[in-house]
Amino acid sequence: MQDKLMLMIPGPTPVPERVLLALAKHPIGHRSSEFSHIFADVTTKLQWLHQTKNDVLILTASGTGAMEAAIINFLSKGDRVLVGENGKFGQRWAEVCEAYGLNTERIQAEWGKPLDPEVFREKLETDKEKSIKAVIITHSETSTGVLNDLETINRHVKAHGEALIIVDAVTSLGATNIPMDEWGIDVIGSGSQKAYMIPPGLGFVAVSEKAWQAYKRADLPRYYLDLGKARKDAHKNTTPFTAAVNMIVALRESLTMMQEEGLANIFARHSRHRSAVRSAVKALGLPLLTSDDCASPAITAVAPVTVEAEKVRSLMKKHFDIALAGGQDHLNGKIFRIGHLGYVSDRDILSAISALEATLQMLGLEIPPGAGVNAAIEAIWGQAHQS
Amino acid sequence: MQDKLMLMIPGPTPVPERVLLALAKHPIGHRSSEFSHIFADVTTKLQWLHQTKNDVLILTASGTGAMEAAIINFLSKGDRVLVGENGKFGQRWAEVCEAYGLNTERIQAEWGKPLDPEVFREKLETDKEKSIKAVIITHSETSTGVLNDLETINRHVKAHGEALIIVDAVTSLGATNIPMDEWGIDVIGSGSQKAYMIPPGLGFVAVSEKAWQAYKRADLPRYYLDLGKARKDAHKNTTPFTAAVNMIVALRESLTMMQEEGLANIFARHSRHRSAVRSAVKALGLPLLTSDDCASPAITAVAPVTVEAEKVRSLMKKHFDIALAGGQDHLNGKIFRIGHLGYVSDRDILSAISALEATLQMLGLEIPPGAGVNAAIEAIWGQAHQS
Repeated sequence: MQDKLMLMIPGPTPVPERVLLALAKHPIGHRSSEFSHIFADVTTKLQWLHQTKNDVLILTASGTGAMEAAIINFLSKGDRVLVGENGKFGQRWAEVCEAYGLNTERIQAEWGKPLDPEVFREKLETDKEKSIKAVIITHSETSTGVLNDLETINRHVKAHGEALIIVDAVTSLGATNIPMDEWGIDVIGSGSQKAYMIPPGLGFVAVSEKAWQAYKRADLPRYYLDLGKARKDAHKNTTPFTAAVNMIVALRESLTMMQEEGLANIFARHSRHRSAVRSAVKALGLPLLTSDDCASPAITAVAPVTVEAEKVRSLMKKHFDIALAGGQDHLNGKIFRIGHLGYVSDRDILSAISALEATLQMLGLEIPPGAGVNAAIEAIWGQAHQS
Repeated sequence: MQDKLMLMIPGPTPVPERVLLALAKHPIGHRSSEFSHIFADVTTKLQWLHQTKNDVLILTASGTGAMEAAIINFLSKGDRVLVGENGKFGQRWAEVCEAYGLNTERIQAEWGKPLDPEVFREKLETDKEKSIKAVIITHSETSTGVLNDLETINRHVKAHGEALIIVDAVTSLGATNIPMDEWGIDVIGSGSQKAYMIPPGLGFVAVSEKAWQAYKRADLPRYYLDLGKARKDAHKNTTPFTAAVNMIVALRESLTMMQEEGLANIFARHSRHRSAVRSAVKALGLPLLTSDDCASPAITAVAPVTVEAEKVRSLMKKHFDIALAGGQDHLNGKIFRIGHLGYVSDRDILSAISALEATLQMLGLEIPPGAGVNAAIEAIWGQAHQS
């Protein structure tokens, strides 16, 4: 049977039919008043999603483009920056910093372990001359399923007073609580193919007033990714370069759906699915890569020992048309990753877990009958009852 | 009546239903073998469109992002570049060069007039120490509807031997003949919402072997727009950052349609529509901004004197739901622009011209009855007969 693919990867995530139909509408002119009206509406909804009054800017770019913009608009050559690196994406932001000649200090943790906020505290507290200009953190590290402790690290940055906090929230925004204004986060980057429930193609950068002050001094070269240009035009409900109009029309539809569900419900759903997947995987006797206290609400990495990760992935695809993600770099072949981000229902989790259970049986694992599904039901139903 | 908009702007251009339906398919994983297969197919088709064996790379970006990549990947800080500037887009590429600290010489012509190839010849011939590293030309200047003489300017660049020729072909590629390999063009940038017949959101950069040699020496900072990364992954049928999968699936469909029509037919259609629109506008007694010998096959700018350009635009929109473009910068309010690029049929041209004729009558202009439509029919039918 064709075309019955179920995406359980950390992006692209499934897209609701309402959104696909919006995407497929005939394009309209990006300089028309109709489009400006849509753009204004989307901008307001993006501020709602970011829990902020700050500018939230839309770029035609992937999440990496958005994060590059989030970094290069606020810094100058030779600036000292701390970059949290405990996975593929933290590593990537350090590479971006180095490509632009920043004085880059990598604060590392093993892939699968969380960043230690104490290391940041110490670096920031001892920086009496305020040489640290930014701290760059990947909130949900997609490559491992670790949720770094943004709230605590951010508190240390606030105590420093000078440094900006720049956050990769690509797989955390819209999945867990990130109250931008309440926490005083300076810059948040994200991408469309995640909790936004639309296909890849748009990046987003939210920018605080403090970051705009830094923008004025920043001297790294930029043009297409210049957020000052984007801001100036966004205030007139337009964009400096041709906007991806179909994607923005689709985004309006998906943000409307998110508002209908409500932030608290969206976060509870992701939390519930994280619990369900983790409980089920444990009940199936497979080791998780990360511990419960730093588990991402978007993605769960499983590090099987008694079966091959890639075999699980290929059988899940072959027999059930469920796409799981593999491991990146040195985790390639060592883990598989289950995405539970965006347009994912309780039923989807039961589907994925029951298919995983069947797959493990095919691979000859002895499993208590129904153990995975039972654990998932317990986690979903127990939590649903409480809410 | 709603939702019966007809786009006659120079982008976004109309999108065929086949393509919209492809766009609206559920996304698939960008690291899947299914997607790699599509990516390989699209890449081959892009080479066909560019008439090249060179790499043609796909970026999630607008045309401006593609052109920035086309410039910054092949140059180093302080490099001397000549930038042709006879409109908004030529101006923009000069701004990009300056933002990156290039030694930028603007070769200017009045907006609406073509660049003079002789000025390039003289600059290049007198550059005995080969200090000119690139010549950057906007082929079809979208802001004015001028088609610059790329073939002649390129010949002068070839005679120089050292400088690269970097071409903004955003509104010329797929509308007029640009045989990349035959002419030896080094870098061509383009964007999806033009002759490609898909919505905005993708940019393309084709790169010659000579340009890749320059890439090795180039030192401008870049990461997201790094074409070396894109090339390395493209040779494995993937992308360094999440590909805009829905857009690429749509692109495959539109490129298939273009192959079905054939390059010669596509170019003939655009040429026919240019003639039809220009003949009709002349017959209606309105002045054209550009002369016939430098007229873009994608867009025609009209500079009315006896009626207000913005009034023509608003009545065309109000009564006929036809979107025309206005003028940019100092041409704002002085011209209106008729797009005839991409998915535009002979019938569309007759629709637009007859609506324009009606609009001019509403504005009180005395026009020989049917003059515009007759001229368009003559131009289309006369040429169709010859082909």
